[in-house]
Amino acid sequence: MLHWLKHYRRAMLPGDISAGVVVAMMMIPQGMAYALVAGLPPVVGIYASIVPPVLYALFGTSSTQSVGPMAIISLMTASTLAPLAAAGTPLYTTLAAQLALLSGLVLLACGLLRIGFIANFFSRPVMSGFTIGSSIVIALGQLPALLGTRPPALHLPSALLGVGSLALLLAARSWFAPLLRRLGVKPVVADIGAKLAPMVVVLGATALVPVLGLEALGVHTTGKVPAGLPIVTIATSNQHWQALLQPALLIGFMVFLISMSGAQTLALKRAEKLHSNYELIGLGAANVGSALTGGFPVTGSISRSAVNFAAGANTQLASLITASLLALALVAPTAWLALLPLPTLAATIIVAVLGMLDTTTLRTAWRYDRADAAALLATAAGVLALGVEAGVVIGVALSMGALIWRASRPHIAVLGRIAGTEHFRNIERYSADTAAGLLLLRVDAQLFFGNVEAVNERIEDELADHPGTRHLVLVLSAVNAIDTSALFALGELNAMLRARGVGLHFAEVKGPVMDRLKQSALLGELNGKLFLSTAMAWDELSRE
Amino acid sequence: MLHWLKHYRRAMLPGDISAGVVVAMMMIPQGMAYALVAGLPPVVGIYASIVPPVLYALFGTSSTQSVGPMAIISLMTASTLAPLAAAGTPLYTTLAAQLALLSGLVLLACGLLRIGFIANFFSRPVMSGFTIGSSIVIALGQLPALLGTRPPALHLPSALLGVGSLALLLAARSWFAPLLRRLGVKPVVADIGAKLAPMVVVLGATALVPVLGLEALGVHTTGKVPAGLPIVTIATSNQHWQALLQPALLIGFMVFLISMSGAQTLALKRAEKLHSNYELIGLGAANVGSALTGGFPVTGSISRSAVNFAAGANTQLASLITASLLALALVAPTAWLALLPLPTLAATIIVAVLGMLDTTTLRTAWRYDRADAAALLATAAGVLALGVEAGVVIGVALSMGALIWRASRPHIAVLGRIAGTEHFRNIERYSADTAAGLLLLRVDAQLFFGNVEAVNERIEDELADHPGTRHLVLVLSAVNAIDTSALFALGELNAMLRARGVGLHFAEVKGPVMDRLKQSALLGELNGKLFLSTAMAWDELSRE
Repeated sequence: MLHWLKHYRRAMLPGDISAGVVVAMMMIPQGMAYALVAGLPPVVGIYASIVPPVLYALFGTSSTQSVGPMAIISLMTASTLAPLAAAGTPLYTTLAAQLALLSGLVLLACGLLRIGFIANFFSRPVMSGFTIGSSIVIALGQLPALLGTRPPALHLPSALLGVGSLALLLAARSWFAPLLRRLGVKPVVADIGAKLAPMVVVLGATALVPVLGLEALGVHTTGKVPAGLPIVTIATSNQHWQALLQPALLIGFMVFLISMSGAQTLALKRAEKLHSNYELIGLGAANVGSALTGGFPVTGSISRSAVNFAAGANTQLASLITASLLALALVAPTAWLALLPLPTLAATIIVAVLGMLDTTTLRTAWRYDRADAAALLATAAGVLALGVEAGVVIGVALSMGALIWRASRPHIAVLGRIAGTEHFRNIERYSADTAAGLLLLRVDAQLFFGNVEAVNERIEDELADHPGTRHLVLVLSAVNAIDTSALFALGELNAMLRARGVGLHFAEVKGPVMDRLKQSALLGELNGKLFLSTAMAWDELSRE
Repeated sequence: MLHWLKHYRRAMLPGDISAGVVVAMMMIPQGMAYALVAGLPPVVGIYASIVPPVLYALFGTSSTQSVGPMAIISLMTASTLAPLAAAGTPLYTTLAAQLALLSGLVLLACGLLRIGFIANFFSRPVMSGFTIGSSIVIALGQLPALLGTRPPALHLPSALLGVGSLALLLAARSWFAPLLRRLGVKPVVADIGAKLAPMVVVLGATALVPVLGLEALGVHTTGKVPAGLPIVTIATSNQHWQALLQPALLIGFMVFLISMSGAQTLALKRAEKLHSNYELIGLGAANVGSALTGGFPVTGSISRSAVNFAAGANTQLASLITASLLALALVAPTAWLALLPLPTLAATIIVAVLGMLDTTTLRTAWRYDRADAAALLATAAGVLALGVEAGVVIGVALSMGALIWRASRPHIAVLGRIAGTEHFRNIERYSADTAAGLLLLRVDAQLFFGNVEAVNERIEDELADHPGTRHLVLVLSAVNAIDTSALFALGELNAMLRARGVGLHFAEVKGPVMDRLKQSALLGELNGKLFLSTAMAWDELSRE
């Protein structure tokens, strides 16, 4: 905690200041936009960007993580609260804070229980599919705000402003950075400049509202924003805690996953080590803090953290500077914020989530491992068809499903001896000798409940294909672990082979596996021997 | 399908007949008792024992599996239906049949989709914990019937009959078989004789009812049993299908798991091969058949199948004989069945589930792998605290949780060279040489989403501990697979090491892993080389 403060050097200050300012400029439109995604008044997005990063800085371990509102978590918030209250009502705002509180408590509990390994329940392809599905849901959800009414109808002034903003933002994303570079600006600065385009476009659009009298034409704006920091309103007497508990578990889980996946990429670039249990505590504290200051669920945002990193952030001081600037923005005159046109905010949301539609993982998986690509597409389809909360469950189920499905097809080779050597190889890949009555099988997988039946079946098949077998040698050189289920299966295999008069032998058992087997009865009951090497087994058993 | 009929030989007939008769004698009291567990009239247990085994015989692949009512599935049925209808009402009976229909359709769908691998989602310790928890729930649930009223109160005549039956059954289980053996009866016959004790005790208790006028004393009996086969009553117009769908998924899953775990043990003894997809279809057809003949969810019963096996069953003809005998029992005069005293049936249930309280798995796991033992106890506690349906979900979650938790702590060794040889070993276990600037790491696990972060962190730690490292060699001799998540992680590691001026090399990549890596961009971008052996890597890189 505050490890970075103890080792702070003056040389870090300029980077932290510039990153703090840049991220603040990015965070004002983004925070308001993501509050809208969550169905909340835009100012709530600012509230949720002040205390959470400060608390994360106290407990978290990433030096560049920028904690605050984030598109997918906002979508999950909206989908949780929609059945419980009407968007825009005080109850809705209160429930959003309650949801942040519960999510934060879930994260804190996981951190205190030290179960940071739960982040490992999502495979990368599944995470990519989840992100793609959520992005599409968010973008589609912004179309009414972009066009000023439900499509296919449109409200012309709103649609002109929205689509115009969208075009400007897309142009900025594609052309502005290269243009700046061609004008001689340093690439890093040019990229950061392009990231500030949303702020510029939002300011420009806001200026247009009074100039063109857009409000009178029916363009919706954010409306009056209360000045100053919010009054906390977490009622404890209502009946909704129970309804929020399960969503809070899912949101807590995704807050952690999303934050970790972004932070880890940046940590790798800095040779910095994250501690997942402290991350849980940092994110938990941030969400509790968000709840207590009128906010909603927050997480580390990949895109914002990357800007923070690129703008030179050396420590969490950058985030503290961002938070201070946002707090200042709230106590400064906020009248202008009331004029922010919603079609432009919708445009910034759509451009932001389009950036999350990354197909790199899909393309790589498609070539490398079709099952992973299928899991990615199925997760994306699940989010689109059944919603973002079901998508989390589908994601875990598909990650685990793909794992168990693969485990149920272990690679098992019948080995033969390469003539004149002590090397043993798969007889299907190499020309190798076998010995009558001796069957050598190498299992290329840990033995665990997910593959015991498949291994058993394969052994039965091989015994049926080699009817004269008197000795079965399991070559365990690739077996990194044997769990309790597999221990029982080996015991049953041993009893069965003994009844049939076939010996069961183990060769090349690994050290850690042997240490564990010694604590079981299996070795004592083994209807055969242990051999240090396959060659020793061959020498002794092929002579019989 | 009917594979066994084509290969039927006359010599198989005596065994099938004796097993068929023995299992029928066992099934009459058991079927009725398990119907009571499910909250249904006892006769429904007989209905569910006739058509299901016939359909299983058509499609299933186990020669000795005995399909019919089973305690845990009955408990799940009761816990599903309790909130929807009052036990004993016609609606309850109809819903039980609907539940069997849906469970059967779920199983058929899984069989047609060929996803038999789903049985691999439960580890053996978790299955044991689930069984123990369910047994306790069932036994506790029978106490009111055993004592004639809610404990701690008791209805004396009922309690005397119930506890007396219980004592007799327990005595038969412990002493009857040894006694028969001492009297010169063959062990196998003696064991089977002991299994028929419930039938004898039930018949005896039934005879006592009119003799002692127990009904007048207030002892409950099964009541009038309609003669003949049932009239099918699956109403299709009611609103309950949706409420039954999720329970049907869980029940279908457990029907398959319970049936497979029993059948596999027996199949191993016969060197017989089960086909999990045909098993799904066989069990699915059996449940649909049960539904259409007024029954409730059924599965293969481990205890009954073991008796079938021990009594000499060679093929599914034994089950067909059992089914015929039960059908005959229904069309024969059934007046006597009305007098069956419920306290005695409760006693047979308690003794049956006490037989499922097997602690072998717990004791083995406790010594062998404490995490598996913890998963077992947690599953049992989950069933007791939250019910049997939540128990299924908890079981899958704990199986997967233990798997991912273990994966998140992979064994990774720093290797050194045993002086004067080409052997490389863990420097913590062996006295082995290292070379300045060269770091050899062997990962003893497949690389996948469950351990990529742990591997990354360990690599970071080792690089920090060996600050002069110029070449990192990953020895992949124990890596049986690399999934898409790990492929990306290796790509990021490669980029990071390149930026730091450290080479990344792979040694001893396995054939199937290399085949797959060739379809990725990683090898082309690798900031280092591939070595066939660790010795080659050492020779080339330690010289620099």
